[in-house]
Amino acid sequence: MKFELIATSPGSKARAGALSTGHGQIDTPIFMPVGTAGSVKGIHTRLLREDVQAQIILGNTYHLYLRPGVNVIEEAGGLHKFNGWGLPILTDSGGFQVFSLGDIRKLTDEGVRFQSHIDGSYHLFTPEKVIDIQRSIGADIIMAFDECTPGDADFDYAKKSLELTQRWLGRCFDQFNATEEKYGYPQSLFPIVQGSTYPALREQAANHVKSFDADGYAIGGLSVGEPEHLMYEMVEVVNAVLPGDKPRYLMGVGTPVNILEAIDRGVDMFDCVMPTRNGRNGMLFTSEGIINIKNKKWQNDHSEIDKNGISFVDREYSKAYLRHLVISNEMLGAQIASQHNLAFYLWLVNTARDNILNGSFNIWKEEMVRKLNQRL
Amino acid sequence: MKFELIATSPGSKARAGALSTGHGQIDTPIFMPVGTAGSVKGIHTRLLREDVQAQIILGNTYHLYLRPGVNVIEEAGGLHKFNGWGLPILTDSGGFQVFSLGDIRKLTDEGVRFQSHIDGSYHLFTPEKVIDIQRSIGADIIMAFDECTPGDADFDYAKKSLELTQRWLGRCFDQFNATEEKYGYPQSLFPIVQGSTYPALREQAANHVKSFDADGYAIGGLSVGEPEHLMYEMVEVVNAVLPGDKPRYLMGVGTPVNILEAIDRGVDMFDCVMPTRNGRNGMLFTSEGIINIKNKKWQNDHSEIDKNGISFVDREYSKAYLRHLVISNEMLGAQIASQHNLAFYLWLVNTARDNILNGSFNIWKEEMVRKLNQRL
Repeated sequence: MKFELIATSPGSKARAGALSTGHGQIDTPIFMPVGTAGSVKGIHTRLLREDVQAQIILGNTYHLYLRPGVNVIEEAGGLHKFNGWGLPILTDSGGFQVFSLGDIRKLTDEGVRFQSHIDGSYHLFTPEKVIDIQRSIGADIIMAFDECTPGDADFDYAKKSLELTQRWLGRCFDQFNATEEKYGYPQSLFPIVQGSTYPALREQAANHVKSFDADGYAIGGLSVGEPEHLMYEMVEVVNAVLPGDKPRYLMGVGTPVNILEAIDRGVDMFDCVMPTRNGRNGMLFTSEGIINIKNKKWQNDHSEIDKNGISFVDREYSKAYLRHLVISNEMLGAQIASQHNLAFYLWLVNTARDNILNGSFNIWKEEMVRKLNQRL
Repeated sequence: MKFELIATSPGSKARAGALSTGHGQIDTPIFMPVGTAGSVKGIHTRLLREDVQAQIILGNTYHLYLRPGVNVIEEAGGLHKFNGWGLPILTDSGGFQVFSLGDIRKLTDEGVRFQSHIDGSYHLFTPEKVIDIQRSIGADIIMAFDECTPGDADFDYAKKSLELTQRWLGRCFDQFNATEEKYGYPQSLFPIVQGSTYPALREQAANHVKSFDADGYAIGGLSVGEPEHLMYEMVEVVNAVLPGDKPRYLMGVGTPVNILEAIDRGVDMFDCVMPTRNGRNGMLFTSEGIINIKNKKWQNDHSEIDKNGISFVDREYSKAYLRHLVISNEMLGAQIASQHNLAFYLWLVNTARDNILNGSFNIWKEEMVRKLNQRL
């Protein structure tokens, strides 16, 4: 994997880059739609490519391991072929999900023993096993197995948790280096920087991951309940340490404003369920502000959903119709809102990139943040 | 509205025709996807047009009246504009739904007093009101308000029920003739033939509706629990009476085999929730037979969903992937299966039409019925 840093915007740490993978190039900064179980909820694969203009999607190791299982994905020839996506994929390691969804039975140095949230069956995730599973899933970018430290952890807990994550990271790289890709294209392993909201831990964690000379680095354990200003502070602390010539991925973040603020601080990659999950609930992100489509004020607004939108759903459906669909729990409502939101997120990072290349990111960002926070 | 009868296949009553409406021509025989609340569940409007190749869809008076309400649809300029479909629409009168979904408080000659299944509010549907609502919704074809007689009704009940439907029909036409279309294109009112499974009642009912010299005629109250052979017998009895130069619509029917058998008996139009409802549950109709995609046998079948399918979903997704999505309750699974099934239903009636035009309907139908009944 090759990362080319193309430009940095004056008066900002915002970067425009290009990431080459075995399934094509990714322009950064980039937002990655979340396809937890191999599908981005409510969006046909071809629409994700052609209409949303996604360049890379996320899959989840925890979910895919439990269902359909590694065997099925291997038989398909990897996740790219199984779901027909074909473009780059990143898999989360399951570190986050095993703690948030699984019923933890035992956390030791060896790994995590947990019960499936689907059928209660017992499973053991170790750093080695999670690498093996991700070899079988075959994503272009795979993630180290970590403990996602809770946002309200005290210093001692956060420190112990980080030390576990660091021991696991060594084992992840050992297993990664001892095994090969299964489908003829390369995979890159990204370590994850933890350390909760403690600058000293974050700095130490960033220096630790840096020593592995990885193809890219992730910042995890943020946007998990801590105040926003601490999230931004941690991003600054970590990015001051991480090498400038490798991509930086802020996991699970966030609102459009969160993303612009993190781009401003030198982050290149993002994922979040917000555009799809909030979309299913009727919240639309637009370049003019936030719309709660369930609001009575849209009942007889027969104008197009978003006059600035890049998706066909923005022009082919009205606000009043979308409101009716969402209120009536019609599937199509969730589909339209999810597709709109994802297309908007992709528009946002692409436009951020254009402004970085033009040297106008700062001015544009300030104006956008003002608008993005409005409730329409 | 103009109906042109183009051909009848030798040795069969199967007819190929063309129905002209204010929103374009419909080639018959035709299947109409059901868009109960104004949306065909899980299918983007543009995909319904371009991929499924639907020519006309159904809306439901009962649902649309309750939500979003007549005012919203009028403000949009009618249902075609509200949902962005643009092509022909037929609205069911709500006669079926008010009896199956509403909580009936009182059925009198005046009409039906019922409680909404959504919020328990009280409403009165009379023949006049149902015509008024359908004027506001603005479908190209609107249906008379009737009592849908239960499939197991005894003769006396069926006779009384039919007499009520017949009194209501006169009032429907009076109201229809006393009012005008609201959006500048014509509407046609189709009467509905009831009479349960009693040939004498069906024949009398067919003669009664015929006296109104309507633009088309519907056969209702079938596929409601009666044996299939009685359904076919009733279709034969009714079609022997209905005028040959007007379209005939068999309401709520049915399986692919039901549709071919009814085409063979001279029916031109169909609607049914089966392709979408059964699709959401993992049942696929194909030209080779029926697939229950949840079946373990498809777990590692990575071949395309339907090699004969006309939809892009048939080629872009595998059986194993669709199985995974349906079992995981991923929205995309319901979307794919619904889109496949609707495209298959449209392929079926279009291919029936081609064979009628070629004079080969009988041979083709026999072969298809044999295959359609297979479980793959």
